Amino acid sequence: MKGVTSTKTATDNESIDSIVLSLGKKAQGASRILATLTSQRKNDVLNSLAELIESRVESLLEENQKDLQLGRESGLSKALLDRLTFTPERIESMAEGVRQVAALPDPVGEEIERTVRPNGLDIRKVRVPIGVIGIIYESRPNVTIDCAALCFKSGNACILRGGKEAFHTNSALAALIRDALQLHDVPISAVQIIPTTDRAALNALLRLDEYIHCIIPRGGEGLIRFVAENSLIPVIKHYKGVCCLYLDKDADPDMAESITVNGKVQRPGVCNSIENLFVHSEAAGSLLPRIANALLEKGVELRTDSASEGFLLGVKGISFNPLTEEDLYEEYLDLILAVKVVSDIDEAISSINKYSSSHSDCIVTKNEAAARKFLAEVDSATVFWNASTRFNDGFEFGLGAEIGTSTDRLHARGPMGLRELTTYKYQIFGNGQIK
Amino acid sequence: MKGVTSTKTATDNESIDSIVLSLGKKAQGASRILATLTSQRKNDVLNSLAELIESRVESLLEENQKDLQLGRESGLSKALLDRLTFTPERIESMAEGVRQVAALPDPVGEEIERTVRPNGLDIRKVRVPIGVIGIIYESRPNVTIDCAALCFKSGNACILRGGKEAFHTNSALAALIRDALQLHDVPISAVQIIPTTDRAALNALLRLDEYIHCIIPRGGEGLIRFVAENSLIPVIKHYKGVCCLYLDKDADPDMAESITVNGKVQRPGVCNSIENLFVHSEAAGSLLPRIANALLEKGVELRTDSASEGFLLGVKGISFNPLTEEDLYEEYLDLILAVKVVSDIDEAISSINKYSSSHSDCIVTKNEAAARKFLAEVDSATVFWNASTRFNDGFEFGLGAEIGTSTDRLHARGPMGLRELTTYKYQIFGNGQIK
Repeated sequence: MKGVTSTKTATDNESIDSIVLSLGKKAQGASRILATLTSQRKNDVLNSLAELIESRVESLLEENQKDLQLGRESGLSKALLDRLTFTPERIESMAEGVRQVAALPDPVGEEIERTVRPNGLDIRKVRVPIGVIGIIYESRPNVTIDCAALCFKSGNACILRGGKEAFHTNSALAALIRDALQLHDVPISAVQIIPTTDRAALNALLRLDEYIHCIIPRGGEGLIRFVAENSLIPVIKHYKGVCCLYLDKDADPDMAESITVNGKVQRPGVCNSIENLFVHSEAAGSLLPRIANALLEKGVELRTDSASEGFLLGVKGISFNPLTEEDLYEEYLDLILAVKVVSDIDEAISSINKYSSSHSDCIVTKNEAAARKFLAEVDSATVFWNASTRFNDGFEFGLGAEIGTSTDRLHARGPMGLRELTTYKYQIFGNGQIK
Repeated sequence: MKGVTSTKTATDNESIDSIVLSLGKKAQGASRILATLTSQRKNDVLNSLAELIESRVESLLEENQKDLQLGRESGLSKALLDRLTFTPERIESMAEGVRQVAALPDPVGEEIERTVRPNGLDIRKVRVPIGVIGIIYESRPNVTIDCAALCFKSGNACILRGGKEAFHTNSALAALIRDALQLHDVPISAVQIIPTTDRAALNALLRLDEYIHCIIPRGGEGLIRFVAENSLIPVIKHYKGVCCLYLDKDADPDMAESITVNGKVQRPGVCNSIENLFVHSEAAGSLLPRIANALLEKGVELRTDSASEGFLLGVKGISFNPLTEEDLYEEYLDLILAVKVVSDIDEAISSINKYSSSHSDCIVTKNEAAARKFLAEVDSATVFWNASTRFNDGFEFGLGAEIGTSTDRLHARGPMGLRELTTYKYQIFGNGQIK
């Protein structure tokens, strides 16, 4: 097919393919060395990186300005420009994040299981790095540092492909990482960023299954779907959070209100905030009006099914926005909540298994049997009983830091910390056993 | 594009797509029920299945004869016909295998970790089934029963796609499974086989990422590569076993000989037998001639590099087959062994990391430092010190039974037993916590 494209394009793509291939090979070489580094040496690199970040605030801000200028010229939305923007505080918190990763326990080398078999074979299951991880992300440049630190601490080489809007900022951050690695004589190919914003480089990366062992895409649904459909490398998806809350007929009314309000308004723009509220028909009469009042006070728009409307007629100042089925699939990331009355816990569970993105769902009830049924039958990464879905993150779970929240089932589910960036191998100690 | 194909083909493909889609939806429905079955109920189904298999030996042999007849007519190789062939003994051992799976502990519901956070949140990481598993395999029909039993015991629904050569046999086995499920009032969609041998059905299956959560291909490299390249669903690959043995300069000579001979000749047609032998140059003079003698006595063909030939000149009856680099990548599955002298352990490790399929590799040495270096730096699922690679299997590891040996890194590495057919979810017990 090459003859069909223009000479220029063919040459460009070939050169991009060979650039990306070379990144893959270097990453593999580095990964073999990273797998054997002591925790101390890894922590030294990370602490140096934190210092370097702090010492170069000015130049980071300058490089960031270039991206912001280009972003404004190309008409990036205000939200995207905000994500892209560095401030001295944001840079400081990035450095602090790196120090926190340095302070976490090193998962590599941990003995997960050990069995001595009747024939004397001593079988040890030992935690090791995955190898080479590709991270594909969008505009937020702090992801460059966060992901590099987590991959490095867990002994993985990484190849980073950030958004083109953050290219200058990411390149400046990559230079800092390189300096930190060099300071401690660690191969600089431990952390590489793709030196071009050409989409062909992403396509080439996703086919390098010989050298890259895992792809983690972080970004919008479109990006994640593109990566999943085009990758030969296993992908751990971090899809959106359509989180659901179910208020059971035996819900404590105060708890029902506080968990609903917290789940929706405390930080609506994040993936663990709630988007759908299901209410048991027997509790709707007492719960819905007071909860609606509390939400309206915080400026939340309610999208209600007709049964909910019946319970909400007396609420002062309410205007009804009829709920559609599409609403139930939507991640609003905004002060909007879908509200639907269900006839029993079975309908709640089947609705959640249908509409939830399997990220975080919650039941509020005083009835333990109902709670245990919900915890068992809701097929999501994290299922809460009487606690806000907002607690679903790596810090709250005690993982220390997270690279994201997997909505997949294989390898890692829910918050992914350092351990979830490792795999294992079997080391078998024998004394001459033959079969 | 549909207008381009003939009406007939388009209709056929649409109908295959809709058949496969319907399998996926039914499997999802069944998986929700399977996830909550008690161990007792699952074991009852399995024990009934074992009895049914034993009670229908005659009809299974008859159906198998149909496949064998068609196979002979279409010119299947002797090896393939042998794999396909049922005997009363093979059928009995299949039933016995099902009883063994019933007797294994149920992994579902196991609490993997539990943390109570300072705010009182009680976070439990609990083992749950993966959901729906697709198994793609080739001619050996016992895989139908083995995989169905393992998936069922671990609470997963499965969709099986066997080889077209075994279609009648597999259909007869599927009927037995259905009967066993019905006897205990368990949804028959827990185990489904694809009711057509059309390749289009495989393609349709691999795109059903909404309903199927994991694909396990078992078969030749071509099949596995096809599946990996065409699947939108995560695949756990079970690639070939190019297993390597390294005899260190400090190898015990008797152990070196017995582990080499055992690794090559005890059962050369399986994935954990050795294909490549690397020998330290300082030990080659004393080890290679005696080992070559022992191997030649067993009828092994040696493919030797020039350095090895130098050490083997005095061996009676030896004829030299020069080693090529391609040989080192090859899985012979036969009485053939590649032999190469290396200058030190580093060359051994880098050669193994290059040529091994990361399945099972071994070092023979009395030197603990060398062994620990090898165990750490050889990047394979299972690394042995002074024991035959033939021990790499689920039974020998104490897993009870295995669905295969993963040469992948994510989710499962090495032998995959019942636990490796599960994932986890977080169940969080709160008392009203909000953030």
